[in-house]
Amino acid sequence: MNQEKPRIAVAMGDPAGISPEIAAKLLASPLIREAAELVIFGDRRVLEGGARVAGLALDIDVVSDVDGFRHYRGKPVLFDLNNLDPASVAPGKATAAGGKFALQNFRTALQYAGAGKAAAVYFTPFNKHAMRLALPSYDDEIKFIRDTLNHTGAASEFNVLDGLWNARVTSHIPLSQVAGAISAEAILRGLALTDASMRAAGFAKPRIAVAALNPHAGDGGNFGREEIEIIEPAVRAAVEKGLVVDGPFPADTVFLRAKNGQFDAVLTMYHDQGQIAMKLMGFDRGATLIGGFPFPICTPAHGTAYEIAGKGIANTGAGEQAFLLAASIARRQQPAHEAVD
Amino acid sequence: MNQEKPRIAVAMGDPAGISPEIAAKLLASPLIREAAELVIFGDRRVLEGGARVAGLALDIDVVSDVDGFRHYRGKPVLFDLNNLDPASVAPGKATAAGGKFALQNFRTALQYAGAGKAAAVYFTPFNKHAMRLALPSYDDEIKFIRDTLNHTGAASEFNVLDGLWNARVTSHIPLSQVAGAISAEAILRGLALTDASMRAAGFAKPRIAVAALNPHAGDGGNFGREEIEIIEPAVRAAVEKGLVVDGPFPADTVFLRAKNGQFDAVLTMYHDQGQIAMKLMGFDRGATLIGGFPFPICTPAHGTAYEIAGKGIANTGAGEQAFLLAASIARRQQPAHEAVD
Repeated sequence: MNQEKPRIAVAMGDPAGISPEIAAKLLASPLIREAAELVIFGDRRVLEGGARVAGLALDIDVVSDVDGFRHYRGKPVLFDLNNLDPASVAPGKATAAGGKFALQNFRTALQYAGAGKAAAVYFTPFNKHAMRLALPSYDDEIKFIRDTLNHTGAASEFNVLDGLWNARVTSHIPLSQVAGAISAEAILRGLALTDASMRAAGFAKPRIAVAALNPHAGDGGNFGREEIEIIEPAVRAAVEKGLVVDGPFPADTVFLRAKNGQFDAVLTMYHDQGQIAMKLMGFDRGATLIGGFPFPICTPAHGTAYEIAGKGIANTGAGEQAFLLAASIARRQQPAHEAVD
Repeated sequence: MNQEKPRIAVAMGDPAGISPEIAAKLLASPLIREAAELVIFGDRRVLEGGARVAGLALDIDVVSDVDGFRHYRGKPVLFDLNNLDPASVAPGKATAAGGKFALQNFRTALQYAGAGKAAAVYFTPFNKHAMRLALPSYDDEIKFIRDTLNHTGAASEFNVLDGLWNARVTSHIPLSQVAGAISAEAILRGLALTDASMRAAGFAKPRIAVAALNPHAGDGGNFGREEIEIIEPAVRAAVEKGLVVDGPFPADTVFLRAKNGQFDAVLTMYHDQGQIAMKLMGFDRGATLIGGFPFPICTPAHGTAYEIAGKGIANTGAGEQAFLLAASIARRQQPAHEAVD
């Protein structure tokens, strides 16, 4: 493998939305082909369908024996798992077949990178409903990756938009459980992971703002005491460890501060606190990084966009940003790889 | 009183920030003078200080006997309460004296409107810390207005920005108490008050979106059941009553829908859910309406801006929007007034 040009394993996502079109467009992009070696996990027929929608001719090598693959010849390589007949999938519809396809591609790509054969994993959008039809115990990407890689350490989803990073201390839990799930340890863990992930992406000293939990940051204890008893001590502890951290700031102004350049990242206490802001600032343009695993895992922040499936109008801006983020981290991490070529 | 041109009682807010400058600029604005008769409660010396900062000459009548006042002669009238020597207030500093001044002006203006002598109340920004120094039991505007007017009905703060309204079911309480404070009754009350307040402001059939409480609107019950058990039934009940209501929508996309014109208002479940979005969409441009009282009470959404006190650079855009909103509602409400001229 070329260390200057990392290899990235690309998993084809849900086949019923814009994922095949996005994949075909990325494979055709000179910028993307220049940034990394691409090995794609999916089905040739589905990818060809995406290329037809995109109005592009595929310029790739197709390999059906993943284990037998040796030489990257300058073109993206499709590892054809031959796992979905596109005729069996209606556009714009979540199906068990579509979910099974996406899960198999994702699992195989993760295992490939987990074996040291790729330095990052990238996936085009999944449909959660389809994932659950295929695998009822499917919770979210992080849990699936943990299970697939047998990984138990801290992991977190980061949203990245115009250079601004957002991570959260709690995520997919009821709002009623958020306050109880906030602890100084969890905040410190989130800050350390944010700092490490941003350094891996090239920030020398990422400046991280911490959002408060309560309205008006608790208003000096009048509307909740978590700021005083939990968040402030965690921020102090992080600063003592040498991290560049400030807060807690009222949640309704912290993103204005960050947007104005005061911070590189915001650590929020719960899902919607950050997602409301990030989606308002640029719904379709952001990238998602799942950090904390041995290699970066990236995807565009947008979804499968069933409503425009097959129209050829999918915008690949977020998809490219997410891919370039994965490539940038992969280049810096230079992990120990199996020599495969 | 001229029914076409409602009378609005203006309370001078905190003297240490931009409030005196904002007041002087509003009094000089032809648009504002055209929209309503203005009677201002405060101190001549403080207002003159604001005019000096603004670089404006005051063109007003000054009256020291509020009860003896009879005829509006086409110019704004200052009811000079002679209640603060500006030399005693340092710019940019919250003081008990400043809080006492703002509270007296506000109370007097509320009582004046409560007696039917004005059709709306408007105030320039308060500083909550100064209010509490002057009155330790000061909680927020709504409680103070309730106490002053002996009013017990439903009341709510609305934020209005570029024609989009936001109200909330809970407000200044710890996040840990939010889920417990959400009930179908509270949501219905909020929807009815939002609908009534927007009709009073000229919307024939306001379209109201309801935000979910949990991430991904609970994801079908996986991350909380309040959507299924509380919010959806409340939305159905509101629709049955003839209101134009839809939801619950995930909180991280509901403002995108509203911004795109799908809705005129968003009812949020807690403070930061709406404030994060509204502040990102235009921190300084919004107006605040306190609705549910016998007359509208309006103020700009921004604060006292201590950091630019005395510089003459305060922007009155939000102040004008808030004033025009009060005037617009007052004109439509045409309440029964005491005939005072």
